[in-house]
Amino acid sequence: MKIILLLSGGLDSTTLLYEMHRKHQVIGSLSFDYGAKHNHKELPMASWHSKKLGVSHTVIPMAFMNDFFKSDLLKSGGSIPEGHYEAANMKQTVVPARNAIMLSIAAGFAESQGAEAVAYGAHTGDHTIYRDCREEFLKPMAEALREGTDGAIELLRPFITMNKAAIVKYGAALGVDYEHTWSCYKGENLHCGSCGTCVERHEAFLLAGVPDPTVYQVHHYE
Amino acid sequence: MKIILLLSGGLDSTTLLYEMHRKHQVIGSLSFDYGAKHNHKELPMASWHSKKLGVSHTVIPMAFMNDFFKSDLLKSGGSIPEGHYEAANMKQTVVPARNAIMLSIAAGFAESQGAEAVAYGAHTGDHTIYRDCREEFLKPMAEALREGTDGAIELLRPFITMNKAAIVKYGAALGVDYEHTWSCYKGENLHCGSCGTCVERHEAFLLAGVPDPTVYQVHHYE
Repeated sequence: MKIILLLSGGLDSTTLLYEMHRKHQVIGSLSFDYGAKHNHKELPMASWHSKKLGVSHTVIPMAFMNDFFKSDLLKSGGSIPEGHYEAANMKQTVVPARNAIMLSIAAGFAESQGAEAVAYGAHTGDHTIYRDCREEFLKPMAEALREGTDGAIELLRPFITMNKAAIVKYGAALGVDYEHTWSCYKGENLHCGSCGTCVERHEAFLLAGVPDPTVYQVHHYE
Repeated sequence: MKIILLLSGGLDSTTLLYEMHRKHQVIGSLSFDYGAKHNHKELPMASWHSKKLGVSHTVIPMAFMNDFFKSDLLKSGGSIPEGHYEAANMKQTVVPARNAIMLSIAAGFAESQGAEAVAYGAHTGDHTIYRDCREEFLKPMAEALREGTDGAIELLRPFITMNKAAIVKYGAALGVDYEHTWSCYKGENLHCGSCGTCVERHEAFLLAGVPDPTVYQVHHYE
């Protein structure tokens, strides 16, 4: 099956890249430069793994999201909150309709390239605050994209029943080099270790029993 | 209800602007500069009507669609075919997943602006070749956007049971100035009169019994 893969450069989508590359023909990986504070840190990671596997990597510039959308994840927004990923204050990092936008663009890009499916790394650990990572959203979205492309494009979400720790365990067995992935929403030189995504990242390695190769600024949560 | 309205500057969305302005609080109109051959002709029309009604008009730049998507509607594509709008050769003017992309961006923009709904002028005359104008697509899309925004954004499509002639008749009664609208896909100085959208435009005026104010290059189809 010919696949276009959404690749952020984080743990989940990077693992998905290797999994899809094993099972299908990944004709391209797709990233988005949408004004997130950490885009300049995660995009080179997406590029690194794509190059390693010989997969063509495209970055879609979407400056309008930073200009017109309200979210603390964006450069135009406030500070990234610290604490656990599930905490209510992480809600201010939601970018309205972000994944619907990314999946729609991926579907149009995929159809234009002659692909048959878009693959997306959503998983069970994508929490209630991130509504557009959940199956309640993804099921009608998949149907809309299928209908809207006259059946040309399917939306694959093979990790939807796995949690982040299971994904890391699976990826480690596949030999994924997680040193070249980025999670931290702050986008500073090193992973901060304090924001929700850093906490969740380190927890996933701990639960998976896989050594965490990440250098964090602080480790106060252990 | 606070509304963000998708406004192309064509007959349908312009009529919808006046209809929504009458019934709701239109807090913004949204257009997309996506590399279509006729964007430079239709966007000023969208701006003209927004200004007339005192509605804030935003144009989202989406050059990436022209760069990466395959369609003869785009500057990067081939010539616009002539003939009837329903003819098979018009299929090459479909831009893959275009409306899913526009609706998703509108939903995120709307949530960011504190709106409660996105209004979209799809109608029964949006033919089988344009799959992403039809209710089979719009119903799951509406559900995906509702779920993805945690119930914040509804997708309104009040013209979905009307045809283009009925819309023009309705708009004429509302006093919409159709001279300031643009349909032609070719995007030349005047409406060509020969492409599918020009044929459909003129037919709508004829069937509605409303004088067509458009100056066409040719009128060979009458």
